[in-house]
Amino acid sequence: MFGARYLIRALRPCSSVPCPRHKPSARLSVRDALGAQNTKGERVKVQGWIRSVRSQKEVLFLHINDGSSLESLQVVADSSFDSRELAFGSSVEVQGQLVKSPSKKQDVELKAEKIEVVGNCDAKAFPFKYKERHPLEYLRQYPHLRCRTNALGSILRVRSEATAAIHSFFKDSGFVHIHTPIITSNDCEGAGELFQVEPSSKIKVPEKNFFNVPAFLTVSGQLHLEVMSGAFTQVFTFGPTFRAENSQSRRHLAEFYMVEAEISFVESLQDLMQVMEGLFKTATMTVLSNCPEDVELCHKFIAPGQKDRLEHMLKNNFLILLSQSTEEEKRTILTLILINNEDLVGRVEVAAVDLLVPGVGELFGGSLREERYHFLEQRLARSGLTEAYQWYLDLRRFGSVPHGGFGMGFERYLQCILGIDNIKDVIPFPRFTHSCIL
Amino acid sequence: MFGARYLIRALRPCSSVPCPRHKPSARLSVRDALGAQNTKGERVKVQGWIRSVRSQKEVLFLHINDGSSLESLQVVADSSFDSRELAFGSSVEVQGQLVKSPSKKQDVELKAEKIEVVGNCDAKAFPFKYKERHPLEYLRQYPHLRCRTNALGSILRVRSEATAAIHSFFKDSGFVHIHTPIITSNDCEGAGELFQVEPSSKIKVPEKNFFNVPAFLTVSGQLHLEVMSGAFTQVFTFGPTFRAENSQSRRHLAEFYMVEAEISFVESLQDLMQVMEGLFKTATMTVLSNCPEDVELCHKFIAPGQKDRLEHMLKNNFLILLSQSTEEEKRTILTLILINNEDLVGRVEVAAVDLLVPGVGELFGGSLREERYHFLEQRLARSGLTEAYQWYLDLRRFGSVPHGGFGMGFERYLQCILGIDNIKDVIPFPRFTHSCIL
Repeated sequence: MFGARYLIRALRPCSSVPCPRHKPSARLSVRDALGAQNTKGERVKVQGWIRSVRSQKEVLFLHINDGSSLESLQVVADSSFDSRELAFGSSVEVQGQLVKSPSKKQDVELKAEKIEVVGNCDAKAFPFKYKERHPLEYLRQYPHLRCRTNALGSILRVRSEATAAIHSFFKDSGFVHIHTPIITSNDCEGAGELFQVEPSSKIKVPEKNFFNVPAFLTVSGQLHLEVMSGAFTQVFTFGPTFRAENSQSRRHLAEFYMVEAEISFVESLQDLMQVMEGLFKTATMTVLSNCPEDVELCHKFIAPGQKDRLEHMLKNNFLILLSQSTEEEKRTILTLILINNEDLVGRVEVAAVDLLVPGVGELFGGSLREERYHFLEQRLARSGLTEAYQWYLDLRRFGSVPHGGFGMGFERYLQCILGIDNIKDVIPFPRFTHSCIL
Repeated sequence: MFGARYLIRALRPCSSVPCPRHKPSARLSVRDALGAQNTKGERVKVQGWIRSVRSQKEVLFLHINDGSSLESLQVVADSSFDSRELAFGSSVEVQGQLVKSPSKKQDVELKAEKIEVVGNCDAKAFPFKYKERHPLEYLRQYPHLRCRTNALGSILRVRSEATAAIHSFFKDSGFVHIHTPIITSNDCEGAGELFQVEPSSKIKVPEKNFFNVPAFLTVSGQLHLEVMSGAFTQVFTFGPTFRAENSQSRRHLAEFYMVEAEISFVESLQDLMQVMEGLFKTATMTVLSNCPEDVELCHKFIAPGQKDRLEHMLKNNFLILLSQSTEEEKRTILTLILINNEDLVGRVEVAAVDLLVPGVGELFGGSLREERYHFLEQRLARSGLTEAYQWYLDLRRFGSVPHGGFGMGFERYLQCILGIDNIKDVIPFPRFTHSCIL
């Protein structure tokens, strides 16, 4: 146990434990309250934060949000409940009757019988002001509080839904999920941009490396997925990857998430492209159907025009272009570009594909891998990597199969479907040069 | 793009692309072939690796596995197909008719019309031998090949199913999934056992830290979940955590996965325990129902007796004991122990709970957090942490709510349900002192 985490545990008299099994309370989430059908005055308890207060002569209106949906629940109370503590940002518990609302703005509302302020909000110091719409750049200064705004609430709910939708897509398609390692000794030959990992200097420095070899944060799970694709014909991973890139651009992070898949017995790039397109469309349709209000908020207030572009992507087949296509062709709304690169070693064509999205850049990158032992051995030998990659050659020595795979940048995917310009706004805690807040 | 990953892309003439949309092949996974109902001699294509060869006078029997299930598909071929290449470990593509099997051992079999060896297996060098059952310790020497055995195949499928089941449990319970950061500046005050992160020494060393502050690999997402629990009443994370622990024990890893949840408006440990118990039971029931054969393999060959213990856990309520309970009480099969610790600062009781499982140790740990501003401020001040944790105090300044959460070690959970003794056998690529292979 660590100092601070231990320190902040609640100190409470524990006399009440052990106690009988806990009786479920009549607590209802805002989302469930809003979705209640044929309300007949059921008594419920709703907890959340005050998003708005409107005090009239005889009636007090509150809007309560608990993060379960973008929409808040309207609470109607007798003006005798009015108090200075019932202010924007305060947390409350409201008990009362769930009734049909006379207003057209909502179906149900909560007729308060009891309102308890759980935690006050220091309005002067609170960086968000009532009824103001703060730009995303402003919110970025408050990574510990910005999730309390409508915009970040929606983005983070979409991120959560998209995560689930991606897992479901692969599971439903028969893929096995693999946790590829975060710390790896693999990339020792690689170019720069690697983060190295060592025990903190507070620990007595041992003679050798902790792992006996230099260890780095992963830049891709591809090689580890290739290991697995010698046993499972379809595997995927969805986890953090890292680049020590000295960039503060709106498209780069030092820590970001990648969805990567590897498929055995694949023979053509078309096989891969089909899975990419299926992943993109299925996950997006699921997100649109599960949190339409959250997506709409972004499309309406942050990225007008994005809704049409997204619909176009979903309705049409992805376009396939060669890398020598004209610039005009490449400006097509969503473009699959087959890149016939020159190899590092010789002047041979590489079976690789990139999916570019205007405004976001490379969303997917995929390729067929070299499964032929002798070709791979020659190329590794030429680069002096035979020893380091003996294990990788082994995969081709024992029942090798043609295989290929792709990676999709998850934050770029979110940028693409929501139309969010800066990658720092679609990840809960962005890490980049000069910044690792919290 | 990095050197090695680029180097190993397949070099292929790309003349065939772009081509018309790919026509789906009649390819069938072994799992789907085995599950086929009322087979009437459909022509199918199955691809996989040979798990056994039995050559009789006129007939050749092969068993093909593709990782989609523990069970292999029996291929029956005319002995004219026999060849030295059809050997244990080779990859093959078999086309033929799916028919009802005359044997009671399986429902269906594949009557081969065409068998193509895709990749040979160098039997002499292959570390696994036909018909031999290799102990898990032996397999651990071959992290790039061990997934090709029945045991690791089953464990990794269970891991994949458990991952999905845990995500589903939280989603179905209304939790929002949060990617808490891997790199953090939070734990700077913490005890030892931290990994520090810096750009690789190959990169020109800048004057300052890359992030301007010392940065570490996360030991827990708790504090970041607490940020989120000021906006969403139920959040969870499921990702890698790290300890630079100099331990080679069968229960510790330097990189392991944690499931962590945080719940707002929680008032008692019972609320937390209910979620823990629900998570454990729901996820386990899902795993048992989705891959019974894989679980059975472990219970039968690796951990006899585990099946009964697991059933007992699932059928009974978790026991609640106080930390002053007797040793005998603590040896109960599954035990919830309420720990009334002495706080670091004073002699006050802490509302914390641990779930211990014999043989595995601490499976869950949870606590109520201190949500009262002044109490927390005093304690942080006493430890000189007020400035570093100003953001954390802020959470209590603006609409604070009582909240609590817990963490579950995912590898220990797998050890617990499968009865696997060594934690290194339930993670695809184990990292620990002196070892970071691949």
